[in-house]
Amino acid sequence: MPTPNTRLTTFLDNCRNRIDAELERQLSSAGNGSERLQAAMRYSVLGGGKRIRPALCLAAAAAVGQAHENAIVPASALELIHAYSLIHDDLPAMDDDELRRGRATTHIAFDEATAILAGDALQTMAFGWLAEAPGLVDQVRLAMIRELASASGHLGMVGGQAIDLESVGKSLTIEQLEKMHRHKTGALIAASVRMGALTAADVTEDQLAALTIYSQTLGLAFQVQDDLLDIEGDTTVIGKPQGSDLARAKPTYPSLLGTAGARDYLSQLLESALASLEGFGKEGDLLRDMAGYVVARTH
Amino acid sequence: MPTPNTRLTTFLDNCRNRIDAELERQLSSAGNGSERLQAAMRYSVLGGGKRIRPALCLAAAAAVGQAHENAIVPASALELIHAYSLIHDDLPAMDDDELRRGRATTHIAFDEATAILAGDALQTMAFGWLAEAPGLVDQVRLAMIRELASASGHLGMVGGQAIDLESVGKSLTIEQLEKMHRHKTGALIAASVRMGALTAADVTEDQLAALTIYSQTLGLAFQVQDDLLDIEGDTTVIGKPQGSDLARAKPTYPSLLGTAGARDYLSQLLESALASLEGFGKEGDLLRDMAGYVVARTH
Repeated sequence: MPTPNTRLTTFLDNCRNRIDAELERQLSSAGNGSERLQAAMRYSVLGGGKRIRPALCLAAAAAVGQAHENAIVPASALELIHAYSLIHDDLPAMDDDELRRGRATTHIAFDEATAILAGDALQTMAFGWLAEAPGLVDQVRLAMIRELASASGHLGMVGGQAIDLESVGKSLTIEQLEKMHRHKTGALIAASVRMGALTAADVTEDQLAALTIYSQTLGLAFQVQDDLLDIEGDTTVIGKPQGSDLARAKPTYPSLLGTAGARDYLSQLLESALASLEGFGKEGDLLRDMAGYVVARTH
Repeated sequence: MPTPNTRLTTFLDNCRNRIDAELERQLSSAGNGSERLQAAMRYSVLGGGKRIRPALCLAAAAAVGQAHENAIVPASALELIHAYSLIHDDLPAMDDDELRRGRATTHIAFDEATAILAGDALQTMAFGWLAEAPGLVDQVRLAMIRELASASGHLGMVGGQAIDLESVGKSLTIEQLEKMHRHKTGALIAASVRMGALTAADVTEDQLAALTIYSQTLGLAFQVQDDLLDIEGDTTVIGKPQGSDLARAKPTYPSLLGTAGARDYLSQLLESALASLEGFGKEGDLLRDMAGYVVARTH
């Protein structure tokens, strides 16, 4: 029997390979549009990434007894949405980032207009893929589209990015900080888990409710760990212009709770996430592994 | 019996009232996101507009014997996509326009980041609405989502905007110009008609094929008339900086065919559009009226 660590590593590797192959396959069809636009879409989507959201989707499918097969397209659609959000967040008018995953961001590698359009087209593509996802009945496809729209729109991810931009330089309460993160990253992480569970047309309300709590808790844990990694990161980065940090000072969990307080909170969140999976037997193990991975990841 | 002109005016007025009421109703729910973002979405969508795409959708529903009722949400979703595309096209990195419909564009009235996000969220909302459109069976909702995704993505509207940006300052052949417009404006106009027809779950392939020809022809006519109106407009606008026109010189039908040639072409397109409706009786009259309207409109 593999140790949890081997099991997780194997799962994450397999998942990344399957998802990358699917994204590659679907994005390589020639089409009859703009070559430059399509190159920017490929660059943004196929440039690596941990594929955490797809992995959560596949792990949730496993938790309700479903084969990975039917979750591959939904998982890939989630990655399209994630990729589009990164392109737009990196734009000069937003976070103005020139590097991501060690490569030039899309608007630097191409140009700003192409980056905006590539993000737009990737969002469209995600919904188009869900509407044609193989192995799923129409009712499930529509439930997933509603889930993704709700999680990524103005009351989800995009709303969170707007709240984030409004928060720059402001002092937030912990409640306000959590509201921002619940929207900005939490909603899409929750949708990843819920869409995986929806691959089982007979998923129960109880199962969905438990997985929703799991995924919302995990979404917060993800952000706390992100904030902690940012601090670690900052101390090792040399020559980062301090002025830009100050100018864009964003509230974080460590800044509100202290580093030790943030670590304690992270442990509590992990415990809650695992507790929410109590109703699941061995089939929930991949989700348990993923929770451990999210709080322990180093990048 | 009303004259064609009265019939069209009444239809367009009713359509605009119904669509505006639906958009107002759906966009006014408070939600729990960013107030600024939601204000920008409302500003962009509710700021007037001729609602030509919704009118085509409703007219096509009538052509296949369907009541307007079931086409209202699909028609509104089309308007959301149109509004999002205008917000993004107006951005500084794209066409850099500060005025639209006599009002400040969204990035001027708010800011660039909010404008990008408002466009993003409106696109998401369109797919979310289709997934819940009342009065339609799941199969029809999915067919519409596929239609809209295909028409507005990288092989449709967004692809067309990319081709347009690449064409600035270049001399295009008439074939290249038509490819650009087929994508940029034609695809969404065709989707408007086809989605209206899809409200009839029993629409025949023959009907859809005829309406596709109608809508593609109409889409081209729309663009030719747009180009002609631009010329008219330019002569009456005083003090427009000539340098910016030269710098952004875009190929147009009048520049390739001459003004008289473009007018001839427009007449041929109208004739073809009407011919494609031969299989439809009186129930196709609104589509016939719309064709006349598109080629004769003055703004």
